[in-house]
Amino acid sequence: MQSGSASQARSVLSWENGVVRRVRDQLAVEEPLQLRVDTAPFVVTMRTPGNDDELAAGFLFTEGVIQTRRDLLRLAPFPRNADGNVLDVFLRPSPARDHQRPARRFLSASSCGLCGKTALEEIHRHLPKVRSPLRCRAETLLRIAPALREQQAVFNRTGGLHAAALFNSRGRLVVMREDIGRHNAVDKVVGYGLLGGRLPFNRHLLLVSGRASFEILQKALAAGIAMVASVSAPSHLAVAFAQRSGQTLVGFLREERFNVYTHPERVRFR
Amino acid sequence: MQSGSASQARSVLSWENGVVRRVRDQLAVEEPLQLRVDTAPFVVTMRTPGNDDELAAGFLFTEGVIQTRRDLLRLAPFPRNADGNVLDVFLRPSPARDHQRPARRFLSASSCGLCGKTALEEIHRHLPKVRSPLRCRAETLLRIAPALREQQAVFNRTGGLHAAALFNSRGRLVVMREDIGRHNAVDKVVGYGLLGGRLPFNRHLLLVSGRASFEILQKALAAGIAMVASVSAPSHLAVAFAQRSGQTLVGFLREERFNVYTHPERVRFR
Repeated sequence: MQSGSASQARSVLSWENGVVRRVRDQLAVEEPLQLRVDTAPFVVTMRTPGNDDELAAGFLFTEGVIQTRRDLLRLAPFPRNADGNVLDVFLRPSPARDHQRPARRFLSASSCGLCGKTALEEIHRHLPKVRSPLRCRAETLLRIAPALREQQAVFNRTGGLHAAALFNSRGRLVVMREDIGRHNAVDKVVGYGLLGGRLPFNRHLLLVSGRASFEILQKALAAGIAMVASVSAPSHLAVAFAQRSGQTLVGFLREERFNVYTHPERVRFR
Repeated sequence: MQSGSASQARSVLSWENGVVRRVRDQLAVEEPLQLRVDTAPFVVTMRTPGNDDELAAGFLFTEGVIQTRRDLLRLAPFPRNADGNVLDVFLRPSPARDHQRPARRFLSASSCGLCGKTALEEIHRHLPKVRSPLRCRAETLLRIAPALREQQAVFNRTGGLHAAALFNSRGRLVVMREDIGRHNAVDKVVGYGLLGGRLPFNRHLLLVSGRASFEILQKALAAGIAMVASVSAPSHLAVAFAQRSGQTLVGFLREERFNVYTHPERVRFR
């Protein structure tokens, strides 16, 4: 497979109404990406190749490993890696950062609430509530779901990718990223902002193609995003998180309808 | 929230065709579950409460931490844990198992191929090819997707859960499990088999409600499952894995059609 391509053609048997045919199908590419931090293995994620720098930067930022763009000294492909699936990240030395146990730190950061504490208590020690002047009209929300679908080039070929997209308050698309992993698509959008010096995204809203889980809200909050919309269902923990963090959470965003689960004051119902 | 419930009611604002109403909505519950192995923290997963014993057993088995039912001495809720979100697992002592670094072992097991190797080479050192007498008629495949949907009680309330279901070759449902995580639903099905002494599932087929990723195929192979069907798209790595492991992979399973990506010899096209 060519490195960096997001889809791959394959011949498959198609059965339809009793007729079997051999057809060409486009598959979404799924490959492991290993991040090395200061030459030590840090984490592996299954991802769709493309925008790997954004994915790495966004992941480290939304998981709290780095706090600003300046903490990232350099991103570079691992030299002895022909497949492009290993990325070296070099960080600014920090006394607060624990360099000895990166894998454990990640497990801890992504675990969100253990050892007798509830998930929400643990999280809210780390991230302050969102501050945002964002207001958005109900009609604008209805327009962004079709806009995302039009932009999803790889999904439209493969049917197999999630998307995350950032819109401004008037419904204009700022950036869209696709990935086989829901979280990765969000990390790529946040990484785009971090690497370009555009954070916080506190005048924007994030639309995700899949379900809104707790981790999606957490990653959005790290980027200052005050409104998250999903075309599908939110989880109860995503709703509880959004309530506490001050984020507006919209679900089941379809052609003619949506639900507002938290902080509806940012939505203008005409 | 009551411990162990899979959905939770909440009042939300619903906007439809210009009319705003306050309605009751059912949310899928998402809570962290921490597994402790021999009293040491091992891994945390976001899951929907219910069948946690199966989830723990299935996860440890499909990730290769345990090889048989006998490796599991005891599963018990952590005593000082009122929320039911911490589970103690006690394993039979094994010289081959590395008790010192469980977290690292998991990261390594779930990473599937790094340090210059491709993912597939790394995986196939661990799992032999599937051996199965399973044959299934095309008409039977078409019947199982509606059968799964009828069984998805929590999904039908919340719209927010994935499902995995095991069928026999005649399309009879054996077990169905729901979870907010795709992988967790599969682990619960495999854990059901492991705890009940029913493995391998080499005369059955597994249907998943979401996309078929590489990890779904890997977990199915650990349980001896020779045929995996998805109502949605497979990834390119899932297809490559199924090709090598000898598994039949069916995708886009709908009312009137499906695709067979690998090993079509198990499907009887009339």
